[in-house]
Parts: sequence; C-alpha cells; structure tokens
Amino acid sequence: MTPIPHIVIVGGGFAGLWATRALASAPVRITLVDRHNHHLFQPLLYQVATAGLSAPDIAAPLRHILRRQKNVEVRMATVTTIDADTKSITLDDGTTIGFDFLLLASGATHAYFGNDQWAEHAPGLKTLDDALDLRRKLLFAFERAEATRDPAEREAWLSFAIVGGGPTGVELAGTLAEIARETLKDEFRNIDPSQARVRLIEAGPRVLAAFPEELSEKARRQLEHLGVEVALGTPVKDIAVDGYRLGDNFVPAKTVVWAAGVAASPLGAMLGVPLDRAGRVRVEPDLSIPGHPDIFVAGDLASLMQANGKPVPGVAPAAKQMGRLVARNIRARLAGEKTCTFAYKDYGNLATIGRMAAVVDLGKLRFSGILAWWFWLVMHVFFLIGFRNRLVVLLNWFWAYWSYQRAARIILGEDRDDPATERP
Amino acid sequence: MTPIPHIVIVGGGFAGLWATRALASAPVRITLVDRHNHHLFQPLLYQVATAGLSAPDIAAPLRHILRRQKNVEVRMATVTTIDADTKSITLDDGTTIGFDFLLLASGATHAYFGNDQWAEHAPGLKTLDDALDLRRKLLFAFERAEATRDPAEREAWLSFAIVGGGPTGVELAGTLAEIARETLKDEFRNIDPSQARVRLIEAGPRVLAAFPEELSEKARRQLEHLGVEVALGTPVKDIAVDGYRLGDNFVPAKTVVWAAGVAASPLGAMLGVPLDRAGRVRVEPDLSIPGHPDIFVAGDLASLMQANGKPVPGVAPAAKQMGRLVARNIRARLAGEKTCTFAYKDYGNLATIGRMAAVVDLGKLRFSGILAWWFWLVMHVFFLIGFRNRLVVLLNWFWAYWSYQRAARIILGEDRDDPATERP
Repeated sequence: MTPIPHIVIVGGGFAGLWATRALASAPVRITLVDRHNHHLFQPLLYQVATAGLSAPDIAAPLRHILRRQKNVEVRMATVTTIDADTKSITLDDGTTIGFDFLLLASGATHAYFGNDQWAEHAPGLKTLDDALDLRRKLLFAFERAEATRDPAEREAWLSFAIVGGGPTGVELAGTLAEIARETLKDEFRNIDPSQARVRLIEAGPRVLAAFPEELSEKARRQLEHLGVEVALGTPVKDIAVDGYRLGDNFVPAKTVVWAAGVAASPLGAMLGVPLDRAGRVRVEPDLSIPGHPDIFVAGDLASLMQANGKPVPGVAPAAKQMGRLVARNIRARLAGEKTCTFAYKDYGNLATIGRMAAVVDLGKLRFSGILAWWFWLVMHVFFLIGFRNRLVVLLNWFWAYWSYQRAARIILGEDRDDPATERP
Repeated sequence: MTPIPHIVIVGGGFAGLWATRALASAPVRITLVDRHNHHLFQPLLYQVATAGLSAPDIAAPLRHILRRQKNVEVRMATVTTIDADTKSITLDDGTTIGFDFLLLASGATHAYFGNDQWAEHAPGLKTLDDALDLRRKLLFAFERAEATRDPAEREAWLSFAIVGGGPTGVELAGTLAEIARETLKDEFRNIDPSQARVRLIEAGPRVLAAFPEELSEKARRQLEHLGVEVALGTPVKDIAVDGYRLGDNFVPAKTVVWAAGVAASPLGAMLGVPLDRAGRVRVEPDLSIPGHPDIFVAGDLASLMQANGKPVPGVAPAAKQMGRLVARNIRARLAGEKTCTFAYKDYGNLATIGRMAAVVDLGKLRFSGILAWWFWLVMHVFFLIGFRNRLVVLLNWFWAYWSYQRAARIILGEDRDDPATERP
C-alpha cells in the first residue's frame, strides 16, 4: 500500500464527480477516469438533440471543474479491464493503475431488450455525440421531405416516432412537435412542417410511470395539446429503415428515436459480483460490493432497494447522494470507523413536456402547466454546472421563448460521413 | 423558357446569399442549393476550432435567413454535374434542375500543392466539421501529453505547427498559444501546458503578406509576444504522422494544421471554360463566363483582375459585392439592358492575432495592438448574421476575456470514431 491512499474513480458523471469533490480535503490522491473530457448535464441532453442548446452549453471540462482540487488527476481514457482481486484497472492506452479504493460510476447506456438490430434505425440518447447525431437526423428528415416529389416518401420523412414514455421520450416528443409546428413555420416551400406526425409510443399504460397517475394523465393531455399522438399500452414489435410495426400495423417512418430501455455500463460485469436483470451491480447498503469492501459502485450502475421496497431511481439527485456517501465511507474506512448505509432522500420529481408545460411531484405538492415549467426551468438552470453556462442557457431560452427559434439548428457531421457526394 | 425566369444559385456563402437577397423583389424564382443547411460566418471559424465559440454561434440555417423571401426555394444537396449547354444541373439525389440563369458560388477548399498525402496529418479549416475535428485534435493532444510517461512522446504531443502565415494561420497560432499559456493553466498534473511549442511556418518572407510590411512586422512581434515561434522563409518539406520536415530538420509534432493553400471548388471545372492556376474560373468583367452570358461565377471561385493589376482578393467583402453585382446584372439582362462590370471597393483589411492584438489596414490609416483588436471585434460582431448570434458571441467573448476561459472546450466525436475502446 502506498503511503497516501490512492482512490480511482471511474466516471465523471454526477456520482463520480460529487464523490471526487467530497474528497477534496481528504488525505488521499485521486485518479478520475472518464472516456470523455467533460462532465455532462444529462437532464438537458434532449435540448441539444432538439437544437435548443449547443453541446458546450451543457458540458464542462472535468479538468476545468477540478483544476483547484490538487489531489485529483484527471485521465481521459476508456477502462478496458477491472481486477477486483489485484485491485487494479487497465486503460485503453495500456496503462495499469492500482488502487486502494475504487468507485465504479460508469453509468448506463441504452438497451434494446434483445433487439440490438434496432439500434441502427432507432438511435438513443446518452452522450453529446448521440445528441448531435439525433439533431442531424431530425433536421435532415425535414430537408428530405422538402426535396422529394414522391408523396409516400414525403409522408415517411415527416413521420417521427419516439419509443418510450419516460421523461426523455416525453421531452423529445413535446419539443419535436413544437419545432414542427412553430420553429420551422414559413421556412419550407413544398411541405408544411406542421403536418409532421410525432408519435410517442409507450408499452405501458401511461407516460411518466414514475409519477402519480394524475400527473401522467396531465402530461398526456399536454402532449396531445402540443400535437403529439400518444400511443399507450402497445409495444413496438419491429423497427426497420423505413418504419416500425405497432400491433398489426406497419407505420412508415424514416425517423425513430429510442428512449425506452436503459442497460448498465458493461464495466459492472467485470467486478465478478451478482448483477440485476438490467446489468446493474447489486451493492451492499453502504454501496460497497459483496466481498470487496474497498470497491464501491454508485449512480445508475448501482442496484439497491430502499427501505420502502422500491429501487433507488436512476436520477441525478440519487447519483449525487450516492457519490457523496461513497466519499464519506472511504473517509470512514481510512479512519478505521464503520461505514454508513445509503438512504435516498427524495426531493421530488420533475419532467418537462414542451413549451411552458411540465409536471412537478413534490410528494404532497403536485402541479402541472406553466407554473411547473417555470419551476423546472429554475431548478435546471440552478443545478447546471458553471456560471457561464447558466447565463448562456438562460439567454438561449429567453430567445427561444420569445422567437420560437432554436439557436442550434445547424446540421453538422455531413462531411464526416462521406467526403464525396452521398449522404445518409 | 418558363414564364417566370428561374435562377439557380449554387452556394449559400457570402456571394450566393447576398445575390439571393438582392433578388428579393425581382420577378424571378430562385433555387438556392448548398450542401450544408447553414450560412457560415467563415471569418470566425478559427474561434470554433479553438473552442471559443460553439458551432451554432457562427452559423444560421439558410432556410431561416430566407424564410420571408417567398421567391426562394432552399435545397440542401450536393451538385454532381453542371451542363452549361442544356442549362441544367443535377443533384446528388438524382434531381435535374433547369435554369435560365446560374450563379456558381461554391467557394474554395484547402489545397496541398500536389502533396495530398499531407491532408491526413495536417487538416485544414473550411467548414464547421473541419473546425470541430480540429478542436478535437488540439484538445486531445494535451490529453495524450498528460497521459504518456515517455518524455519524447510527451514533447511531440506538446509540439504544434501551423503551416501558412495568412490570416487563418496567424489567428490559429495566436489563439493556440493563449490556450496553452492561460486557459489550460492549473488543469494538468504531469505537464505544464505553457511549455507547449506553437510554431507558425510561412514559406514567404513575412506573415500576413496581403498587409503593408510594417503591419506584417508588428503582427510577427505580437505573435512572438504571445509565445508563438514564427518561422519565415522556410517551406515545409514533408508532413507525417509524427512530425514535419523543415529545411534539413525533422521536427517531432503530433499536431500540424494546414492554413497554407486554397483551391477553388471542383464545380468550376464543370463549366468547360478556362481556369486559373488555383482552379478558379476566369470570369468576364461582368462576372459572367466566356460564351455563356447567362452563367455567372462569384466569390472565391471567381478569378478577376482589378484595374490596378491585382487580383480581386478572396475575402468576404469582395464576395458580397460580387453577389450583389450578379443580382444587378441578372435584373439588367431581364430588362434587356447592358450588364455592369465589377469594380472591387476595398474598405480595408483586418486580421486578429490573439488576446487584444490585431492589425488594421484602412489604406491611409494603419494601426495595431489593443485598439485594432477592439476595431476588429466590433466589425466582426456587427457583420455576424442574426441578432441572437451577436449577443451570444459577445457574451462568450466577454467571458473569455474576463476569465481566460474558452466555453466550448468539449471533445466531441470520440464515440463516433469507434464505439469500442480505441481512439485516434
């Protein structure tokens, strides 16, 4: 063991970054590994996908956030193996790093429930690159609809489906409907963008299943008011390049977005301990893993039941709380004290739906509509990392609200796909 | 001939867009074709490459700019052929479009003077995708330098070369030196970013050759003050993956940027008329092409001598003036009147060098330093398209000035290269 304990933290999301910060004054050295160079404010990722915000508006370089915390070294790298017994990880550049304590907080990715062939036709939304790809796909569909002279093809390009009625699906569907109806108004000559069909498909009986039933119902009505078709209780049966199958019907659609399933980061499986069905690591009440008290898992990768029998939800506040508890438990272990168990403190649940529409569930207090939207906006801007980002995001939103415009409606990456003439 | 004359404009840059706008009240229908969906404010492209601005800050969707001009249809497509005799073009989606008048304004790209194999190791800067690729390359170099334990490799990752001492090369070199010295300060643990070697290589005897000699000299001194090594009078002899050859010396460098050569868009060659050495179309004094009075070329693709014997420079003001003259000449032709000849009105020349340093040449009035920088800033923000962009750009710059920070320091596109573990 080195004189100064070495803590390796994998993942610079909410769990990893909050744990890192909570160890600022601890007598340790920390290596924070992330495959990206930035912390991402994931709750606003759908705004980048729908061209409301630029990628840098919702991300900040990890190095910059942590520049004054001298006990941290940031490494931009991908973890290739984890060895719980020798207490070491290896990175994609070949480096092996030993640790005294490990926090694995590498989060989640999308899952297609055994239908991985759908990934090609129905991309998901987890990283900034996903968001930029999705932005290109959404904006490009209107370009193709405008260019074609074939009515059936035009209809297919103007047919959008979002699979999954959770917060991301609801946000995407509501915003896309607003873009079609308002933002793109007057800009096309051969199509009427407001005729675009935006369908939100949820296999379960209601949208926003984590919310009380009355708010789900309000969200559905607000979505329909924005022009979204909400299809409940019907799972998608197939997704192909030119459409999807819903029940017995094949619906032509060139643009399908996947917001339905989440699978844990594959790094969890390298720990050699039991996983739940979604691939998450079943952690002990103190967030360590069975048989390895020096290894912790936090955030979306951790699977833990609350005292009320419900799982800890995969949301940002839970990840932050877990990160902070891991930091506290590492300090306890270093001091020879007992670790604490995790208790999720639920401050409430918010989801936005579209222009001036949202739902808020604070336990006893539940509300929806304009007031909920303002509440959502203030909370999100408040929690956004970095002063400059907050200001730019607010400015973009005021501009978007006033003008119905979306600042980032730029199709990027066309050249990258093929430097010659073809496009997807 | 159709009842309403059909004008096809290829390219939504300064020449094409200004021509389109100048035809707003003309009794014509216009098809504007561009392979991107946006007009790009190219003079600020280096700011996107150096992470000062987001891509959408300097671009606006062509459809949005032209939404109220009802005689225009915008097509996002690549032109594959031009037939001057049958007066038609074809697009990459197979469509053929006939025209009564054509304006070809597809601009320029970078040229490697017969060394196309250098393109892979020394990317250029012409599109937003180029800028994002370059941003990734620049930021990634510091990450690799931090990660490696090999001193020689570290030095190579911290060695940057910019080939070409024109305005783009000078801007990139000055800004990169500022990033290394100020922006990244305190963020790394194994390297000192201010030790990075930023070299500007110019084959000719001075930087900013289009400026008076005294301003070239001032620019060189300002660059050196910012920490840039300026190598004059020495052409690069070879560029490889791990360095470049300058004179008899091989200099290890992982990051070389090409800002040296410009070649005209290959579409010019499809017109079947004489080209100059850079592939630009030799236009008649009224900007039409020899033998085809209905076909015009404007902007960087046009080659024309001024009355003073100098070529019209490839700058934004010249492109705008050409675009407007083509619109005027098309109106003249429709009215059965004579066309006018082009006379470039030179309002002056600006170049920025880095933090608070620039040179300004207004003919009789020449100045440099802080005052020049403020002048440059005001002019660029003033000419930037779109009210919202101006505000966001100003905000970003005030923030950057105050904090030395650069808002867009986000490495994107990593996932795209390889979803698994490898990176370039």
